Amino acid sequence: MEVVQVLHMNGGVGETSYANNSFLQQKVLTMTKPITEDAITKLYCRSYPEEIAIADLGCSSGPNTFFVVSELIKVVDSVRQKLCQKSPEYQVFLNDLPGNDFNTIFRSLPIFQNKLREQLGPGVGPCFFTGVPGSFYGRLFRKNSLHFVHSSYSLQWLSQVPQGLESNEGNIYMASTSPPNVLKAYYEQFQQDFSLFLKCRSEELVDGGRMVLTFLGRRSDDPSSKEGCYIWELLAMALNDMVLEGVIEEEKLNSFNIPQYTPAPAEVKYEVEKEGSFSIDRLEVTEVNWNAYQNETDLSDAFKDGGYNVAKCMRAVAEPLLFSHFGEAIIDEVFRRYREIVADRMSKEKTEFVNVIISLKKA
Amino acid sequence: MEVVQVLHMNGGVGETSYANNSFLQQKVLTMTKPITEDAITKLYCRSYPEEIAIADLGCSSGPNTFFVVSELIKVVDSVRQKLCQKSPEYQVFLNDLPGNDFNTIFRSLPIFQNKLREQLGPGVGPCFFTGVPGSFYGRLFRKNSLHFVHSSYSLQWLSQVPQGLESNEGNIYMASTSPPNVLKAYYEQFQQDFSLFLKCRSEELVDGGRMVLTFLGRRSDDPSSKEGCYIWELLAMALNDMVLEGVIEEEKLNSFNIPQYTPAPAEVKYEVEKEGSFSIDRLEVTEVNWNAYQNETDLSDAFKDGGYNVAKCMRAVAEPLLFSHFGEAIIDEVFRRYREIVADRMSKEKTEFVNVIISLKKA
Repeated sequence: MEVVQVLHMNGGVGETSYANNSFLQQKVLTMTKPITEDAITKLYCRSYPEEIAIADLGCSSGPNTFFVVSELIKVVDSVRQKLCQKSPEYQVFLNDLPGNDFNTIFRSLPIFQNKLREQLGPGVGPCFFTGVPGSFYGRLFRKNSLHFVHSSYSLQWLSQVPQGLESNEGNIYMASTSPPNVLKAYYEQFQQDFSLFLKCRSEELVDGGRMVLTFLGRRSDDPSSKEGCYIWELLAMALNDMVLEGVIEEEKLNSFNIPQYTPAPAEVKYEVEKEGSFSIDRLEVTEVNWNAYQNETDLSDAFKDGGYNVAKCMRAVAEPLLFSHFGEAIIDEVFRRYREIVADRMSKEKTEFVNVIISLKKA
Repeated sequence: MEVVQVLHMNGGVGETSYANNSFLQQKVLTMTKPITEDAITKLYCRSYPEEIAIADLGCSSGPNTFFVVSELIKVVDSVRQKLCQKSPEYQVFLNDLPGNDFNTIFRSLPIFQNKLREQLGPGVGPCFFTGVPGSFYGRLFRKNSLHFVHSSYSLQWLSQVPQGLESNEGNIYMASTSPPNVLKAYYEQFQQDFSLFLKCRSEELVDGGRMVLTFLGRRSDDPSSKEGCYIWELLAMALNDMVLEGVIEEEKLNSFNIPQYTPAPAEVKYEVEKEGSFSIDRLEVTEVNWNAYQNETDLSDAFKDGGYNVAKCMRAVAEPLLFSHFGEAIIDEVFRRYREIVADRMSKEKTEFVNVIISLKKA
């Protein structure tokens, strides 16, 4: 878990990269909003519960941490007002690995709570916030204690780097040149992790409880297709160049692999059906440009530089992993090269992240 | 709340003073252990619940943060083993103000959990830990969601400095020279705060739920008696000396007061009975020496210096308050003088803190 721990610690939002990453995440959250709204409305209208316990798994600590939860509460409050129901009490669990910066979340909580109360008006029930440190690949909550689980851009992270990747030489993730046993090892780790995730959540959710999960994923059946892997292949290019120049040892690169799996919708569906606790309400796939600022107007020139934006965004995610494996000395140079490579490719081809979104109900 | 917020942030355990304060707190926790054990045993044996939700209010972030909770879990586990009951699941809520260092707590949690699992053996149910930022003078948890509430050395802190202390010139807390309206203002603030505390907890606890609360208090009926006030009077002496020397403005000192109230057992009892949700199981008073290291053997010479120990301990508590009112410049000098004054008094008289411990059951 050590590697993933380091990685989740920064949860994709390193100190220097809030703006970038948060913008990408915000875009994805906005995209998935209709699905989330639909799920929480169905949950609420099923029984008008007096209390709703919501967990956000992989909440990170940035401007989006409270975004989903406040949207969910607003939806419920709007529905209950239309139906002249008394407001439920809300219990919000914000989860991430123990290294996440919960202090920052907690210190901004009073201001957020005041704002939320203002927006919702006087009739709304109390909202209680708690922080829950720990891996979601294990039990985090009491039995039957949750009504709604949300997770965005976290479940593509595996609990560990898969075993048996020795033959993945020159690559740092699944790639077109990865031998079949590497693809198999990645897939099996995903199956094991996601299946455990489903089992734990099924114990924690009440009957009829719901989950909306967004993965970084792919459309293709081929796990080494460009959709999920290209962004890492370009980072591998930068690293391989540095091996050729003798800056990085070949051995060091060969033993470095990213603990991620970008699943296809069918793979997600298969695990849900195999585990058996949940029925699938919706399963959708969307795309978002690598450069989340693409098509945005009113931006300073810095934000228009796609290579810069994407490298910065990926640096926030990858730096802790690179740092712990290669040390600090190479970091700046890796990302200088990466930025150039990314900018070049973005000018020549369509570069998009694929999001797999699944809405589930505990059967 | 600003002052108290700053103060609770350090919760009596500033970075430089863990060892000292934690030792005092540990001593008090050990003293109150029989009462706590009795209460949790009664709670458990009443209905053998499948899950037990425990809240520690004012948990701070130091070596004692997990102490009480682990003791409570050990007691339940020992009882349930004797009675051949299946282990409950445990939900632990660690509460303090939003400025508390929850990151430190959360990062030490995995090691603590492993240790606890080892100590308890394989039959014990899962223990889920969450952090709950917020003032306990307000609702923190869902209705009927707690079984056991513990709070040690936190409830003597008021929610704010009482209004109307203008006539408390030359003093920084209740003192023998405080006029009656000052004592009245302090007492009324205590009544208002503690009554609100009881109301909130009564909503959150299940029927039959229990609380064990330890206050820094006093035995005497007189709120300005030395037991609770002397330690602050000595700090006021140091500050007054600095006023005489022109280092501190008189006006500045006159507007400074400590938001604390050290209640007598009868005052605690009166509020509980007036609020009406709880019955009193036990109400006890104990003493602990200002210098917690007194009578300890095997200590380095530094720890044997009572003036040093007490000044360090009080500095952890008072520094944030002094800092925000007087600024940084005077701090070192205040505590240098305070240490001398304290050492002198400790050599001449018996100097003890009084602890009021109350064990309550939701009627």
